[in-house]
Amino acid sequence: MSLSNQQKKFVKSLQLKKNRIKYNLFLVEGEKIVEELLNSDFEVVGVFATKDWSGSFIGSLTEVSEQELASISTLKTPNNVLAVAKQKQQQLSNNFSKPIIALDTIQDPGNLGTIIRTADWFGMNNIVCSESCVEMYNPKVVQATMGSIFRLNIVFTSLIDFFKENEHLQVYGALLDGKNCFTTTLHSDNSVLLMGNESVGITPKLFPYIHEKIAIPKFGHAESLNVAIATSILCAEFVK
Amino acid sequence: MSLSNQQKKFVKSLQLKKNRIKYNLFLVEGEKIVEELLNSDFEVVGVFATKDWSGSFIGSLTEVSEQELASISTLKTPNNVLAVAKQKQQQLSNNFSKPIIALDTIQDPGNLGTIIRTADWFGMNNIVCSESCVEMYNPKVVQATMGSIFRLNIVFTSLIDFFKENEHLQVYGALLDGKNCFTTTLHSDNSVLLMGNESVGITPKLFPYIHEKIAIPKFGHAESLNVAIATSILCAEFVK
Repeated sequence: MSLSNQQKKFVKSLQLKKNRIKYNLFLVEGEKIVEELLNSDFEVVGVFATKDWSGSFIGSLTEVSEQELASISTLKTPNNVLAVAKQKQQQLSNNFSKPIIALDTIQDPGNLGTIIRTADWFGMNNIVCSESCVEMYNPKVVQATMGSIFRLNIVFTSLIDFFKENEHLQVYGALLDGKNCFTTTLHSDNSVLLMGNESVGITPKLFPYIHEKIAIPKFGHAESLNVAIATSILCAEFVK
Repeated sequence: MSLSNQQKKFVKSLQLKKNRIKYNLFLVEGEKIVEELLNSDFEVVGVFATKDWSGSFIGSLTEVSEQELASISTLKTPNNVLAVAKQKQQQLSNNFSKPIIALDTIQDPGNLGTIIRTADWFGMNNIVCSESCVEMYNPKVVQATMGSIFRLNIVFTSLIDFFKENEHLQVYGALLDGKNCFTTTLHSDNSVLLMGNESVGITPKLFPYIHEKIAIPKFGHAESLNVAIATSILCAEFVK
């Protein structure tokens, strides 16, 4: 079975957010991440692969040439396989032994994806994103997670509502004037690590919900850290 | 003075590595980073700015329209100013009180730029890159450093030669089978933190120069960490 024009047009349409929402689908690319998708509980609705792909898919597969794959791919260097999967409404798990990561208006897809990947490394399973964050099914987010997107519980909601409904959680906010994270005792149990936007930080309207402000001390001259870097250094401090 | 076709063509040509090398120049974009450039000891050879730019440049400036700026910019959303600066041959400083970061074949410009920015935050001034790393004057590297590129000493050389010439330095290599970095004593003085390529890690031919293997322990399920994230977590462990 080879690629029809209609399939090509449909798959390409999923590069746009409005179509991903309309059809409730998203794109997953590359051997490693598609393998993780196939091992996950996400539903796969289509697989387009070159004859070089040796993946473990047993459903119906569309064999494509390298040129055809390039024509539907979002990558500069397509990597043998592209899958179309169904989006999933997620819920947080009840296991609050490690902090929930709360993200306020993270807009760069690489940052969101990298944070998801790092959270997965450290066994932090719950991420709450403000509705102003970049969409989690953006292909660049999916790519940067390296497959961790299929393992974590990621919900999008109003952070204010979330904090109001979860008053028992200890909220740590990453702010430049916070306490030194390396010398403060950080409680992993029933806690939240709140990280703010790339340029403006945490929205002031969230300040009332923060119980403790923490910061990564600066020893040199850079004005700030990248938000995925800061999140990761703080995650390490919580779990180690 | 407005933008001539010749200027436009020349500035655009610097988007390519071969021309950056040929003319020994590179591009710097955006208000924040250009400001850092002007405060650095890098030589500025041209500034192209819209009338909205309120920077502190006292040399000769070419005023451009937003459309003209967009036509020479590498950014999706150009930010008022683009400068052309002279590349600089750099040397490591003699202050070895914090680890030198050695990078083996880091190929993603965002990763290299982010590592430079984080190193600057933690006051680590020396970075040694293998010649197989992405070029430091790549516009995406410059952008991701957020200006830290003008403050650090960054050299490109054979890592084997570097290790041979600096036998007194204690080399820590980040490897999956290394000792837990959170429980190992890490010596900042006269040491090197060696990080490997995004997909294949440290080249085996560098193994003989590693004195201690260190790793960030995994508590969850991701197969690996992004290299800029791993470098940053390890930098934090060294300096804190």
